[in-house]
Amino acid sequence: MREATNIMHFHTIVPFRPVNPKTRLSGVLTEEERGSFADAMLTDVVAAVRECGSEVTLLSTDPYVCPEADVLVRQEGLNEALNWILPQCEVPVLIIMSDLPLVTKETILQVTSTVSDLAVVPGLGGGTNILFIRDPKRYRVQYYGYSFRWHIEVARELGMTVEVVDSLRLSTDVDEPADLVELMIHGTGRSKAWLEQHEFALVAESGRVKIKHRGDNVI
Amino acid sequence: MREATNIMHFHTIVPFRPVNPKTRLSGVLTEEERGSFADAMLTDVVAAVRECGSEVTLLSTDPYVCPEADVLVRQEGLNEALNWILPQCEVPVLIIMSDLPLVTKETILQVTSTVSDLAVVPGLGGGTNILFIRDPKRYRVQYYGYSFRWHIEVARELGMTVEVVDSLRLSTDVDEPADLVELMIHGTGRSKAWLEQHEFALVAESGRVKIKHRGDNVI
Repeated sequence: MREATNIMHFHTIVPFRPVNPKTRLSGVLTEEERGSFADAMLTDVVAAVRECGSEVTLLSTDPYVCPEADVLVRQEGLNEALNWILPQCEVPVLIIMSDLPLVTKETILQVTSTVSDLAVVPGLGGGTNILFIRDPKRYRVQYYGYSFRWHIEVARELGMTVEVVDSLRLSTDVDEPADLVELMIHGTGRSKAWLEQHEFALVAESGRVKIKHRGDNVI
Repeated sequence: MREATNIMHFHTIVPFRPVNPKTRLSGVLTEEERGSFADAMLTDVVAAVRECGSEVTLLSTDPYVCPEADVLVRQEGLNEALNWILPQCEVPVLIIMSDLPLVTKETILQVTSTVSDLAVVPGLGGGTNILFIRDPKRYRVQYYGYSFRWHIEVARELGMTVEVVDSLRLSTDVDEPADLVELMIHGTGRSKAWLEQHEFALVAESGRVKIKHRGDNVI
Protein backbone atom coordinates (compact mmCIF):
# COMPACT_ATOMS: atom_id res chain seq x y z
CA MET A 1 0.00 0.00 0.00
CA ARG A 2 1.25 3.44 -0.89
CA GLU A 3 0.22 6.89 0.22
CA ALA A 4 -1.73 8.80 -2.38
CA THR A 5 0.92 11.45 -2.53
CA ASN A 6 4.64 10.91 -2.51
CA ILE A 7 5.27 14.28 -0.89
CA MET A 8 6.48 13.19 2.51
CA HIS A 9 8.97 15.30 4.38
CA PHE A 10 11.76 13.12 5.67
CA HIS A 11 15.41 13.36 6.57
CA THR A 12 18.02 10.98 5.22
CA ILE A 13 21.00 9.50 7.03
CA VAL A 14 23.72 7.77 5.03
CA PRO A 15 26.31 5.90 7.09
CA PHE A 16 29.74 5.97 5.46
CA ARG A 17 33.22 4.68 6.15
CA PRO A 18 35.72 6.58 3.99
CA VAL A 19 38.84 4.79 5.28
CA ASN A 20 39.62 1.36 3.81
CA PRO A 21 36.05 0.64 2.68
CA LYS A 22 34.70 -2.41 0.85
CA THR A 23 37.33 -4.83 2.07
CA ARG A 24 35.52 -7.79 0.51
CA LEU A 25 36.52 -6.33 -2.87
CA SER A 26 40.21 -6.45 -1.94
CA GLY A 27 40.75 -9.32 -4.35
CA VAL A 28 39.88 -7.16 -7.34
CA LEU A 29 40.57 -3.56 -6.25
CA THR A 30 43.44 -1.85 -4.45
CA GLU A 31 42.70 0.11 -1.29
CA GLU A 32 42.89 3.37 -3.23
CA GLU A 33 40.54 2.01 -5.88
CA ARG A 34 38.10 0.81 -3.24
CA GLY A 35 38.05 4.29 -1.75
CA SER A 36 37.38 5.87 -5.10
CA PHE A 37 34.69 3.32 -5.98
CA ALA A 38 32.98 3.81 -2.60
CA ASP A 39 32.95 7.56 -3.32
CA ALA A 40 31.24 6.92 -6.65
CA MET A 41 28.56 4.72 -5.06
CA LEU A 42 27.96 7.30 -2.34
CA THR A 43 27.58 9.98 -4.99
CA ASP A 44 24.91 7.91 -6.76
CA VAL A 45 23.00 7.31 -3.52
CA VAL A 46 23.11 10.92 -2.37
CA ALA A 47 22.05 12.18 -5.80
CA ALA A 48 18.99 9.90 -5.83
CA VAL A 49 17.97 10.94 -2.32
CA ARG A 50 18.42 14.63 -3.12
CA GLU A 51 16.17 14.17 -6.14
CA CYS A 52 13.48 13.09 -3.70
CA GLY A 53 13.79 16.48 -1.98
CA SER A 54 15.38 15.20 1.20
CA GLU A 55 18.23 16.76 3.16
CA VAL A 56 21.07 14.34 3.76
CA THR A 57 23.31 13.78 6.77
CA LEU A 58 26.39 11.74 6.05
CA LEU A 59 27.23 9.83 9.21
CA SER A 60 30.93 9.28 8.73
CA THR A 61 33.51 7.42 10.78
CA ASP A 62 36.17 9.92 9.67
CA PRO A 63 36.33 13.47 8.30
CA TYR A 64 35.03 13.61 4.72
CA VAL A 65 33.81 16.26 2.31
CA CYS A 66 30.49 15.70 0.55
CA PRO A 67 29.11 18.77 -1.23
CA GLU A 68 25.52 17.53 -1.23
CA ALA A 69 25.29 16.48 2.44
CA ASP A 70 26.01 17.64 5.96
CA VAL A 71 28.79 15.53 7.37
CA LEU A 72 28.62 14.31 10.93
CA VAL A 73 31.69 12.49 12.18
CA ARG A 74 31.03 9.90 14.89
CA GLN A 75 33.73 7.46 15.82
CA GLU A 76 31.68 4.91 17.72
CA GLY A 77 30.11 1.90 15.99
CA LEU A 78 27.34 2.20 13.43
CA ASN A 79 24.56 1.09 15.77
CA GLU A 80 25.70 3.31 18.60
CA ALA A 81 25.95 6.33 16.32
CA LEU A 82 22.51 5.79 14.78
CA ASN A 83 20.86 5.07 18.09
CA TRP A 84 22.34 8.29 19.42
CA ILE A 85 20.85 10.25 16.50
CA LEU A 86 17.39 8.68 16.23
CA PRO A 87 15.97 10.08 19.52
CA GLN A 88 16.85 13.56 18.29
CA CYS A 89 14.91 13.30 15.00
CA GLU A 90 11.69 15.28 14.68
CA VAL A 91 10.66 14.02 11.23
CA PRO A 92 10.56 10.58 9.58
CA VAL A 93 14.02 9.25 8.84
CA LEU A 94 15.37 7.29 5.91
CA ILE A 95 18.54 5.35 6.71
CA ILE A 96 20.12 4.21 3.49
CA MET A 97 23.43 2.47 2.97
CA SER A 98 26.03 4.06 0.74
CA ASP A 99 26.72 0.95 -1.33
CA LEU A 100 23.44 0.85 -3.27
CA PRO A 101 24.40 2.22 -6.67
CA LEU A 102 21.21 0.99 -8.36
CA VAL A 103 18.89 3.23 -6.33
CA THR A 104 16.78 5.72 -8.22
CA LYS A 105 14.43 8.50 -7.19
CA GLU A 106 11.46 6.28 -8.05
CA THR A 107 12.61 3.33 -5.99
CA ILE A 108 13.31 5.52 -2.95
CA LEU A 109 9.86 7.09 -3.23
CA GLN A 110 8.44 3.57 -3.28
CA VAL A 111 9.92 3.19 0.21
CA THR A 112 8.99 6.56 1.66
CA SER A 113 5.41 6.40 0.39
CA THR A 114 4.64 3.41 2.60
CA VAL A 115 1.62 3.71 4.87
CA SER A 116 3.34 1.51 7.45
CA ASP A 117 5.25 2.75 10.47
CA LEU A 118 8.38 1.09 9.22
CA ALA A 119 9.52 0.18 5.70
CA VAL A 120 12.44 -2.22 5.37
CA VAL A 121 14.47 -3.17 2.33
CA PRO A 122 16.51 -6.34 2.83
CA GLY A 123 20.04 -6.59 1.55
CA LEU A 124 21.36 -9.71 -0.13
CA GLY A 125 22.07 -12.27 2.57
CA GLY A 126 19.71 -10.97 5.24
CA GLY A 127 21.17 -7.55 5.91
CA THR A 128 19.24 -4.28 5.93
CA ASN A 129 19.81 -1.88 3.09
CA ILE A 130 17.17 0.75 3.85
CA LEU A 131 14.95 1.64 6.80
CA PHE A 132 12.22 4.25 6.66
CA ILE A 133 11.14 5.08 10.20
CA ARG A 134 8.06 7.21 10.64
CA ASP A 135 8.64 7.87 14.35
CA PRO A 136 12.40 7.60 14.85
CA LYS A 137 12.24 8.56 18.53
CA ARG A 138 10.58 5.21 19.24
CA TYR A 139 12.93 2.98 17.26
CA ARG A 140 16.42 1.55 17.63
CA VAL A 141 18.56 -0.13 14.99
CA GLN A 142 20.87 -3.11 15.10
CA TYR A 143 22.87 -3.63 11.93
CA TYR A 144 25.24 -6.47 10.98
CA GLY A 145 24.43 -10.16 10.52
CA TYR A 146 20.77 -11.08 10.09
CA SER A 147 19.59 -7.53 10.77
CA PHE A 148 16.66 -7.72 8.35
CA ARG A 149 14.87 -10.13 10.66
CA TRP A 150 15.87 -8.16 13.76
CA HIS A 151 14.58 -4.85 12.42
CA ILE A 152 11.18 -6.36 11.66
CA GLU A 153 10.88 -8.11 15.01
CA VAL A 154 11.72 -5.01 17.01
CA ALA A 155 9.15 -2.98 15.12
CA ARG A 156 6.48 -5.57 15.83
CA GLU A 157 7.39 -5.67 19.51
CA LEU A 158 6.88 -1.92 19.53
CA GLY A 159 3.45 -2.32 17.92
CA MET A 160 4.59 -0.77 14.64
CA THR A 161 3.26 -1.86 11.26
CA VAL A 162 5.92 -3.04 8.83
CA GLU A 163 6.24 -3.15 5.05
CA VAL A 164 8.97 -5.11 3.32
CA VAL A 165 9.73 -3.38 0.03
CA ASP A 166 10.45 -5.76 -2.83
CA SER A 167 13.05 -4.27 -5.17
CA LEU A 168 16.10 -5.77 -6.81
CA ARG A 169 17.59 -2.29 -7.26
CA LEU A 170 17.31 -1.48 -3.58
CA SER A 171 18.32 -4.93 -2.35
CA THR A 172 21.54 -5.03 -4.37
CA ASP A 173 24.25 -3.89 -1.99
CA VAL A 174 27.68 -4.06 -3.54
CA ASP A 175 30.00 -5.92 -1.20
CA GLU A 176 31.39 -8.84 -3.14
CA PRO A 177 32.79 -9.28 -6.64
CA ALA A 178 29.60 -11.02 -7.89
CA ASP A 179 27.61 -7.89 -7.02
CA LEU A 180 29.62 -5.92 -9.57
CA VAL A 181 27.89 -7.94 -12.29
CA GLU A 182 24.49 -6.58 -11.28
CA LEU A 183 25.88 -3.04 -11.24
CA MET A 184 27.33 -3.49 -14.73
CA ILE A 185 24.00 -4.86 -16.00
CA HIS A 186 21.54 -2.48 -14.35
CA GLY A 187 23.60 0.59 -13.42
CA THR A 188 23.18 3.97 -15.09
CA GLY A 189 25.15 6.30 -12.82
CA ARG A 190 28.62 7.20 -11.75
CA SER A 191 29.46 3.85 -10.15
CA LYS A 192 28.90 1.94 -13.34
CA ALA A 193 30.95 4.51 -15.23
CA TRP A 194 33.69 4.04 -12.63
CA LEU A 195 33.79 0.30 -13.32
CA GLU A 196 33.95 0.85 -17.05
CA GLN A 197 36.74 3.41 -16.64
CA HIS A 198 38.62 0.84 -14.60
CA GLU A 199 38.39 -1.76 -17.32
CA PHE A 200 35.65 -3.96 -15.95
CA ALA A 201 33.51 -5.63 -18.60
CA LEU A 202 30.80 -8.27 -18.76
CA VAL A 203 31.46 -11.74 -20.11
CA ALA A 204 28.42 -13.59 -21.40
CA GLU A 205 28.88 -17.33 -21.56
CA SER A 206 26.57 -20.10 -20.46
CA GLY A 207 24.93 -19.66 -17.05
CA ARG A 208 25.10 -16.30 -15.36
CA VAL A 209 26.94 -13.40 -16.91
CA LYS A 210 30.34 -12.86 -15.31
CA ILE A 211 32.70 -9.93 -15.12
CA LYS A 212 36.28 -9.52 -16.18
CA HIS A 213 38.84 -6.99 -15.07
CA ARG A 214 41.73 -6.01 -17.34
CA GLY A 215 41.26 -9.21 -19.25
CA ASP A 216 41.03 -11.59 -16.30
CA ASN A 217 37.76 -13.15 -15.21
CA VAL A 218 37.22 -12.09 -11.62
CA ILE A 219 34.14 -14.12 -10.79
CA MET B 1 2.91 2.31 -15.06
CA ARG B 2 0.20 -0.18 -14.31
CA GLU B 3 -3.17 -0.81 -15.85
CA ALA B 4 -6.06 0.39 -13.74
CA THR B 5 -7.32 -3.14 -13.42
CA ASN B 6 -5.28 -6.26 -12.89
CA ILE B 7 -7.84 -8.40 -14.66
CA MET B 8 -5.91 -9.36 -17.75
CA HIS B 9 -6.54 -12.66 -19.42
CA PHE B 10 -3.26 -14.35 -20.15
CA HIS B 11 -1.82 -17.82 -20.58
CA THR B 12 1.23 -19.04 -18.71
CA ILE B 13 4.05 -21.23 -19.97
CA VAL B 14 6.48 -22.74 -17.49
CA PRO B 15 9.51 -24.46 -19.03
CA PHE B 16 10.66 -27.42 -16.99
CA ARG B 17 13.39 -30.05 -17.07
CA PRO B 18 12.44 -32.94 -14.79
CA VAL B 19 15.51 -35.06 -15.50
CA ASN B 20 18.74 -34.18 -13.66
CA PRO B 21 17.75 -30.56 -12.95
CA LYS B 22 19.69 -27.87 -11.06
CA THR B 23 23.12 -29.30 -11.75
CA ARG B 24 24.81 -26.27 -10.19
CA LEU B 25 23.47 -27.51 -6.84
CA SER B 26 25.27 -30.85 -7.26
CA GLY B 27 27.76 -29.91 -4.58
CA VAL B 28 25.05 -29.81 -1.92
CA LEU B 29 22.24 -32.06 -3.21
CA THR B 30 22.14 -35.52 -4.75
CA GLU B 31 20.48 -35.97 -8.14
CA GLU B 32 17.37 -37.39 -6.45
CA GLU B 33 17.25 -34.47 -4.04
CA ARG B 34 17.67 -32.00 -6.85
CA GLY B 35 14.72 -33.55 -8.63
CA SER B 36 12.56 -33.36 -5.53
CA PHE B 37 13.63 -29.78 -4.80
CA ALA B 38 12.92 -28.75 -8.41
CA ASP B 39 9.43 -30.25 -8.02
CA ALA B 40 8.85 -28.17 -4.89
CA MET B 41 9.91 -24.97 -6.64
CA LEU B 42 7.70 -25.76 -9.62
CA THR B 43 4.78 -26.33 -7.27
CA ASP B 44 5.28 -22.90 -5.71
CA VAL B 45 5.47 -21.20 -9.10
CA VAL B 46 2.42 -22.94 -10.54
CA ALA B 47 0.39 -22.24 -7.39
CA ALA B 48 1.16 -18.52 -7.58
CA VAL B 49 0.26 -18.33 -11.26
CA ARG B 50 -2.96 -20.26 -10.72
CA GLU B 51 -3.91 -17.78 -7.97
CA CYS B 52 -3.73 -15.10 -10.67
CA GLY B 53 -6.42 -16.98 -12.59
CA SER B 54 -4.20 -18.14 -15.44
CA GLU B 55 -4.15 -21.53 -17.11
CA VAL B 56 -0.70 -23.09 -17.14
CA THR B 57 1.12 -25.12 -19.76
CA LEU B 58 4.15 -26.94 -18.49
CA LEU B 59 6.64 -27.16 -21.33
CA SER B 60 8.65 -30.19 -20.33
CA THR B 61 11.66 -31.87 -21.86
CA ASP B 62 10.36 -35.24 -20.61
CA PRO B 63 7.07 -36.81 -19.53
CA TYR B 64 5.91 -35.40 -16.20
CA VAL B 65 2.72 -35.25 -14.19
CA CYS B 66 1.60 -31.88 -12.85
CA PRO B 67 -1.98 -31.80 -11.53
CA GLU B 68 -2.37 -28.05 -11.89
CA ALA B 69 -1.04 -27.70 -15.44
CA ASP B 70 -1.31 -29.12 -18.93
CA VAL B 71 1.93 -30.84 -19.78
CA LEU B 72 3.42 -30.46 -23.23
CA VAL B 73 6.51 -32.55 -23.90
CA ARG B 74 8.92 -31.09 -26.43
CA GLN B 75 12.36 -32.51 -26.79
CA GLU B 76 14.05 -29.75 -28.73
CA GLY B 77 15.87 -26.89 -26.98
CA LEU B 78 14.11 -24.33 -24.84
CA ASN B 79 14.27 -21.54 -27.44
CA GLU B 80 13.12 -23.77 -30.27
CA ALA B 81 10.18 -25.09 -28.25
CA LEU B 82 9.04 -21.64 -27.12
CA ASN B 83 9.46 -20.12 -30.56
CA TRP B 84 7.33 -22.94 -31.93
CA ILE B 85 4.55 -22.19 -29.42
CA LEU B 86 4.49 -18.39 -29.47
CA PRO B 87 3.09 -18.00 -33.01
CA GLN B 88 0.15 -20.18 -31.96
CA CYS B 89 -0.85 -18.05 -28.98
CA GLU B 90 -4.03 -15.98 -29.25
CA VAL B 91 -3.80 -14.23 -25.87
CA PRO B 92 -0.96 -12.53 -23.95
CA VAL B 93 1.61 -14.99 -22.66
CA LEU B 94 3.54 -15.12 -19.43
CA ILE B 95 6.71 -17.20 -19.65
CA ILE B 96 7.97 -17.86 -16.16
CA MET B 97 10.86 -20.04 -15.07
CA SER B 98 10.21 -22.88 -12.64
CA ASP B 99 13.03 -21.98 -10.25
CA LEU B 100 11.50 -18.83 -8.77
CA PRO B 101 10.21 -20.00 -5.39
CA LEU B 102 9.76 -16.46 -4.05
CA VAL B 103 7.06 -15.51 -6.55
CA THR B 104 3.67 -14.51 -5.17
CA LYS B 105 0.34 -13.68 -6.73
CA GLU B 106 0.98 -9.99 -6.07
CA THR B 107 4.39 -9.92 -7.72
CA ILE B 108 3.10 -11.75 -10.80
CA LEU B 109 0.21 -9.30 -11.12
CA GLN B 110 2.78 -6.51 -10.97
CA VAL B 111 4.20 -7.97 -14.18
CA THR B 112 0.97 -8.71 -16.01
CA SER B 113 -0.53 -5.30 -15.22
CA THR B 114 2.11 -3.52 -17.26
CA VAL B 115 0.87 -1.14 -19.93
CA SER B 116 3.90 -1.94 -22.06
CA ASP B 117 3.99 -4.45 -24.90
CA LEU B 118 6.63 -6.46 -23.11
CA ALA B 119 7.46 -6.79 -19.41
CA VAL B 120 10.79 -8.34 -18.49
CA VAL B 121 12.09 -9.51 -15.14
CA PRO B 122 15.85 -10.01 -15.11
CA GLY B 123 17.40 -12.95 -13.35
CA LEU B 124 20.52 -12.65 -11.26
CA GLY B 125 23.47 -12.42 -13.60
CA GLY B 126 21.68 -11.08 -16.68
CA GLY B 127 19.30 -13.93 -17.43
CA THR B 128 15.56 -13.62 -17.99
CA ASN B 129 13.24 -14.93 -15.30
CA ILE B 130 9.89 -13.74 -16.63
CA LEU B 131 8.56 -12.37 -19.90
CA PHE B 132 5.05 -11.04 -20.34
CA ILE B 133 4.33 -10.72 -24.04
CA ARG B 134 1.18 -8.91 -25.06
CA ASP B 135 1.32 -10.01 -28.69
CA PRO B 136 3.20 -13.32 -28.68
CA LYS B 137 2.75 -13.89 -32.41
CA ARG B 138 5.16 -11.02 -33.04
CA TYR B 139 7.89 -12.02 -30.62
CA ARG B 140 10.69 -14.57 -30.37
CA VAL B 141 12.74 -15.54 -27.35
CA GLN B 142 16.41 -16.34 -26.90
CA TYR B 143 17.27 -17.66 -23.47
CA TYR B 144 20.71 -18.47 -22.00
CA GLY B 145 23.61 -16.14 -21.31
CA TYR B 146 22.86 -12.41 -21.33
CA SER B 147 19.26 -12.93 -22.45
CA PHE B 148 17.87 -10.01 -20.42
CA ARG B 149 19.61 -7.56 -22.73
CA TRP B 150 18.68 -9.56 -25.81
CA HIS B 151 14.96 -9.71 -24.95
CA ILE B 152 14.81 -5.95 -24.52
CA GLU B 153 16.71 -5.21 -27.71
CA VAL B 154 14.54 -7.47 -29.83
CA ALA B 155 11.38 -5.87 -28.48
CA ARG B 156 12.69 -2.41 -29.32
CA GLU B 157 13.65 -3.50 -32.81
CA LEU B 158 10.06 -4.66 -33.22
CA GLY B 159 8.79 -1.26 -32.04
CA MET B 160 7.43 -2.69 -28.80
CA THR B 161 7.42 -0.75 -25.54
CA VAL B 162 9.26 -2.43 -22.70
CA GLU B 163 8.98 -2.34 -18.93
CA VAL B 164 11.66 -3.81 -16.69
CA VAL B 165 9.99 -4.96 -13.49
CA ASP B 166 12.05 -4.34 -10.37
CA SER B 167 11.48 -7.12 -7.83
CA LEU B 168 13.90 -9.08 -5.69
CA ARG B 169 11.34 -11.88 -5.35
CA LEU B 170 10.98 -12.29 -9.08
CA SER B 171 14.67 -11.81 -9.86
CA THR B 172 15.83 -14.49 -7.43
CA ASP B 173 16.26 -17.62 -9.51
CA VAL B 174 17.65 -20.50 -7.52
CA ASP B 175 20.61 -21.96 -9.40
CA GLU B 176 23.57 -21.81 -7.05
CA PRO B 177 24.06 -22.59 -3.36
CA ALA B 178 24.15 -18.88 -2.39
CA ASP B 179 20.62 -18.50 -3.79
CA LEU B 180 19.33 -20.94 -1.17
CA VAL B 181 20.07 -18.31 1.46
CA GLU B 182 17.56 -15.90 -0.09
CA LEU B 183 14.96 -18.68 -0.25
CA MET B 184 15.49 -19.51 3.42
CA ILE B 185 15.17 -15.82 4.36
CA HIS B 186 12.24 -14.77 2.20
CA GLY B 187 10.45 -18.00 1.29
CA THR B 188 7.03 -18.93 2.60
CA GLY B 189 6.02 -21.91 0.45
CA ARG B 190 6.83 -25.51 -0.22
CA SER B 191 10.41 -24.95 -1.42
CA LYS B 192 11.46 -23.35 1.83
CA ALA B 193 9.77 -26.15 3.74
CA TRP B 194 11.69 -28.62 1.58
CA LEU B 195 15.00 -27.06 2.58
CA GLU B 196 14.07 -27.12 6.24
CA GLN B 197 12.99 -30.75 5.99
CA HIS B 198 16.35 -31.53 4.44
CA GLU B 199 18.24 -29.96 7.31
CA PHE B 200 19.26 -26.66 5.78
CA ALA B 201 19.51 -23.80 8.25
CA LEU B 202 20.73 -20.22 8.26
CA VAL B 203 23.94 -19.20 9.96
CA ALA B 204 24.15 -15.56 11.00
CA GLU B 205 27.68 -14.35 11.53
CA SER B 206 29.39 -11.18 10.37
CA GLY B 207 28.76 -10.17 6.76
CA ARG B 208 26.02 -11.91 4.84
CA VAL B 209 23.97 -14.69 6.35
CA LYS B 210 25.12 -18.11 5.17
CA ILE B 211 23.50 -21.50 5.03
CA LYS B 212 24.50 -24.81 6.54
CA HIS B 213 23.45 -28.30 5.57
CA ARG B 214 23.46 -31.08 8.14
CA GLY B 215 25.90 -29.14 10.27
CA ASP B 216 28.35 -28.17 7.53
CA ASN B 217 28.53 -24.65 6.13
CA VAL B 218 27.88 -24.94 2.43
CA ILE B 219 28.44 -21.36 1.39
